[in-house]
Amino acid sequence: MITMPSLLSADQRQKLPATLPNWTIHQQSISRELVFRDFNEAFGFMSRVALLAEVRNHHPNWSNVYNRVSITLSTHDLGGLSKLDVELAVAIDQLLPA
Amino acid sequence: MITMPSLLSADQRQKLPATLPNWTIHQQSISRELVFRDFNEAFGFMSRVALLAEVRNHHPNWSNVYNRVSITLSTHDLGGLSKLDVELAVAIDQLLPA
Amino acid sequence: MITMPSLLSADQRQKLPATLPNWTIHQQSISRELVFRDFNEAFGFMSRVALLAEVRNHHPNWSNVYNRVSITLSTHDLGGLSKLDVELAVAIDQLLPA
Amino acid sequence: MITMPSLLSADQRQKLPATLPNWTIHQQSISRELVFRDFNEAFGFMSRVALLAEVRNHHPNWSNVYNRVSITLSTHDLGGLSKLDVELAVAIDQLLPA
Repeated sequence: MITMPSLLSADQRQKLPATLPNWTIHQQSISRELVFRDFNEAFGFMSRVALLAEVRNHHPNWSNVYNRVSITLSTHDLGGLSKLDVELAVAIDQLLPA
Repeated sequence: MITMPSLLSADQRQKLPATLPNWTIHQQSISRELVFRDFNEAFGFMSRVALLAEVRNHHPNWSNVYNRVSITLSTHDLGGLSKLDVELAVAIDQLLPA
Repeated sequence: MITMPSLLSADQRQKLPATLPNWTIHQQSISRELVFRDFNEAFGFMSRVALLAEVRNHHPNWSNVYNRVSITLSTHDLGGLSKLDVELAVAIDQLLPA
Repeated sequence: MITMPSLLSADQRQKLPATLPNWTIHQQSISRELVFRDFNEAFGFMSRVALLAEVRNHHPNWSNVYNRVSITLSTHDLGGLSKLDVELAVAIDQLLPA
């Protein structure tokens, strides 16, 4: 059985800047802007994020133009941030050079 | 030699609604919103658009969330619409059921 | 808990030709050959199969040249066919026109 | 105008091992075997190769199973190796860590 995740607690929110230093923490979402060398590199990254998202059945709100990719994560069913967002953000970060 | 395209003429703009009935014609861009069955179908479509764009070296400004894809085309170097946009839009339309 | 699948029983094997009429049934695998209009269509399909495979953590042995895609499915850990193969094959078939 | 490429000369063939140290040089083709961390990384790479191939209208004969990708390049119309193969191989190598 899949338990629906709950919103992050105040404690969990406080840890976000440390866990996700490259993400901007908003009230109901987190976002990250990425710049790649060119479209080829940007779309290769997007293909990998697509796989990460589909496996989790948790999908980004994202946009791309040429070598730029903007990603916003939120748990829409809850109207805010859950651990699904944190886990996907961590997995996305692991695709990128530190 | 590649000739830089020029902005569409007033005459060419007038034909856009007939050529691209599914696109919204803005002053400096055209856009289309698409809804697919699920993320799998949406991302399969995006992979095909990525190939179309890279071949033309003309890339969309696009966004996706789950089964929705929004595409905006513009020729940034010219600050408006050129035939590169029309040709990519036509090619994108050909990927979709009529 | 994930239960490791078992090999298909003789009864289950007998039903394969009816369930998967477009696949060739081998002793330890099933395979399907596909021809698309061009590389664009072939790779769009491959992107969708990649998502199907990753979600199931069950991946095809596949090859592509231009508009042709060959897919072979087998459950390597068992040395033969399990329901993982049948389920992925059915999902792949659902991507294609009937 | 696109000039059809010709087969590599004997001189050009002799330089292949230096230009493409990670490829196996066959009489009529070149091939490279790659191993990635997992399917996600392998398919992200394949998406990038797909874009490289489509831009050149020169496509690989390739196969994948989980984290392994095998690529064979040949210019089928000529029945052997042309500079299209060398250029695509070099572009593929540039996607990979040195």
